[in-house]
Amino acid sequence: MKPIVLVTFRANENDRKIIEEILSDVAQIVYLKEIDKGEMDTVLSDVKVVLTGSGRDLTKEIISKMKNLEFIQTLSAGADNIPFQLLGEEIIVANNAGGNAKAVAEFALALILSALKQIPRRDRYMRKGIWLRRIPHELLSGKIVGIIGFGHIGVELAKMLKSLGAKVYGVNRSGRSPIKIDFIGKLDSLNYVLSKSDIIVLSLPLTKHTRNFFDESKFKLLKRNVILVNVGRGSVINQRDLYNFLKSNPDAIAAIDVWWRYPERYEEQIFQDYPFHELDNIIMTPHIAGFSPDIREEVFKSALLNIKRFLRGEKPRNIVNRDDYV
Amino acid sequence: MKPIVLVTFRANENDRKIIEEILSDVAQIVYLKEIDKGEMDTVLSDVKVVLTGSGRDLTKEIISKMKNLEFIQTLSAGADNIPFQLLGEEIIVANNAGGNAKAVAEFALALILSALKQIPRRDRYMRKGIWLRRIPHELLSGKIVGIIGFGHIGVELAKMLKSLGAKVYGVNRSGRSPIKIDFIGKLDSLNYVLSKSDIIVLSLPLTKHTRNFFDESKFKLLKRNVILVNVGRGSVINQRDLYNFLKSNPDAIAAIDVWWRYPERYEEQIFQDYPFHELDNIIMTPHIAGFSPDIREEVFKSALLNIKRFLRGEKPRNIVNRDDYV
Repeated sequence: MKPIVLVTFRANENDRKIIEEILSDVAQIVYLKEIDKGEMDTVLSDVKVVLTGSGRDLTKEIISKMKNLEFIQTLSAGADNIPFQLLGEEIIVANNAGGNAKAVAEFALALILSALKQIPRRDRYMRKGIWLRRIPHELLSGKIVGIIGFGHIGVELAKMLKSLGAKVYGVNRSGRSPIKIDFIGKLDSLNYVLSKSDIIVLSLPLTKHTRNFFDESKFKLLKRNVILVNVGRGSVINQRDLYNFLKSNPDAIAAIDVWWRYPERYEEQIFQDYPFHELDNIIMTPHIAGFSPDIREEVFKSALLNIKRFLRGEKPRNIVNRDDYV
Repeated sequence: MKPIVLVTFRANENDRKIIEEILSDVAQIVYLKEIDKGEMDTVLSDVKVVLTGSGRDLTKEIISKMKNLEFIQTLSAGADNIPFQLLGEEIIVANNAGGNAKAVAEFALALILSALKQIPRRDRYMRKGIWLRRIPHELLSGKIVGIIGFGHIGVELAKMLKSLGAKVYGVNRSGRSPIKIDFIGKLDSLNYVLSKSDIIVLSLPLTKHTRNFFDESKFKLLKRNVILVNVGRGSVINQRDLYNFLKSNPDAIAAIDVWWRYPERYEEQIFQDYPFHELDNIIMTPHIAGFSPDIREEVFKSALLNIKRFLRGEKPRNIVNRDDYV
């Protein structure tokens, strides 16, 4: 019998088509939402591989029943919602880094340009009849963009930025870049890059090392009129310190797609712990950068091919280091 | 004695520096705001060349006194504010097309991405605590962008769009493009390009031929979810027809930088004749695309070198065809 791959999220018709297409020759696919209650325990105990969205749907109960689980694959680029403390250390977890890199990079570029040209702010004022012309719009061409967490997203974004005439400085763990950029360094170059950059893009995973790492000690290095974009995870920035920085630096702008507090139900109204929504120098988007129907197929393919690698006995890509999380 | 060049706008210190730098060897520079009232008639009667912003400051009184005027140069890319009906036909008028093309093109790109990613709309909702995630964000890569009025701005924008993976279709009077794009045609290709484009950018001058040309007959050709960007002149679009189109096509978005009604005084509150500011599917900016401190020097240089050409007896560039306006 073929090994069971459990899909934990609600998959639509297109999702199912591509899942079957890629996996049906090597696996039996089971959708969590369709398992009969009476058969739940038996089916779960046979599951070898899980395909999850972000890992948030992996409850204690479900995990405890998957006694033969070997491999968890996320659709999400990050693994920060995987409940590592509930998982045996022998279970391999792979994230889907790179799967949505192009969409996130384009979204980051859109946030950068929106901030440089002050488009949401001008639009907000125009709707009150006020023509905000005194605030200049600046050119991206010639600006220095520092990308902190220079990985798949950083590479895609750097290509776009270079073609538009910007300079790109990167910081990552390896200190290496697969493409030519203007500066690449390890963590010991962080302060240098932060102080030099006109625009800073954070595209870091949320791990125990990055949580809250962007705090007052970093904010005080930034240019007075910096543009700070976050498309990684909200909690890498200290919420209070960002609020205070924006409050006391009216010429700086933050463009934030990832947050500290999320709605639990669809269309629930939610605010953060600090009133960012009252600030004039912030652009707020609802964690949407990685979600585009134009790349959904690509994201699925990337995750599914990794499952296939595992089932064929090859080494999967993007294996997560458990020690970064627990 | 050197010929007199009259600067009609309020020039700041940097402006004066570059004006003197380029023209002082071939001209005597006079600033309108600094002429003594008693000498006004004498000075104006000697003016050979005028450097104006858009031409709006050329009143009937001033023009009637410049009996030796030969050449008018605008800083503005368009000549639609030049009072041609007050000018003798022998006076040469040159616009400054191309001078701010790079800034306008970058701004147009920012409007395109803001609309594709729905950034101002999502920001507006986030400020009310509403996470607008159901509306997708689309990729620019792969989209068809039609540029109507494919000139200096179009070329700069096309380079950016091509490097980001979009397809570019152009329409202009010559039917030619200096760079390789995916389609270029004359006016007889307009309907084809309008019906094919996912995104349409209008970068047309306002002449008697283009005024109101984008009306219901064009709107009915567009894709249901088109993005329509205008960085040329407001009045090339029929105001009522745009309003009705947006009202009845909620999936379409307009991103509009140029308008029909403008504030007469600085910070005057002003709205258009139709309540665009109440629509959810419009992005409104206050005619700012061409105004960036980063290119002010370039804009001045381009205009001043053209004046120098004229004064040296060479043929100036960008000579305006009077028949397009009167």
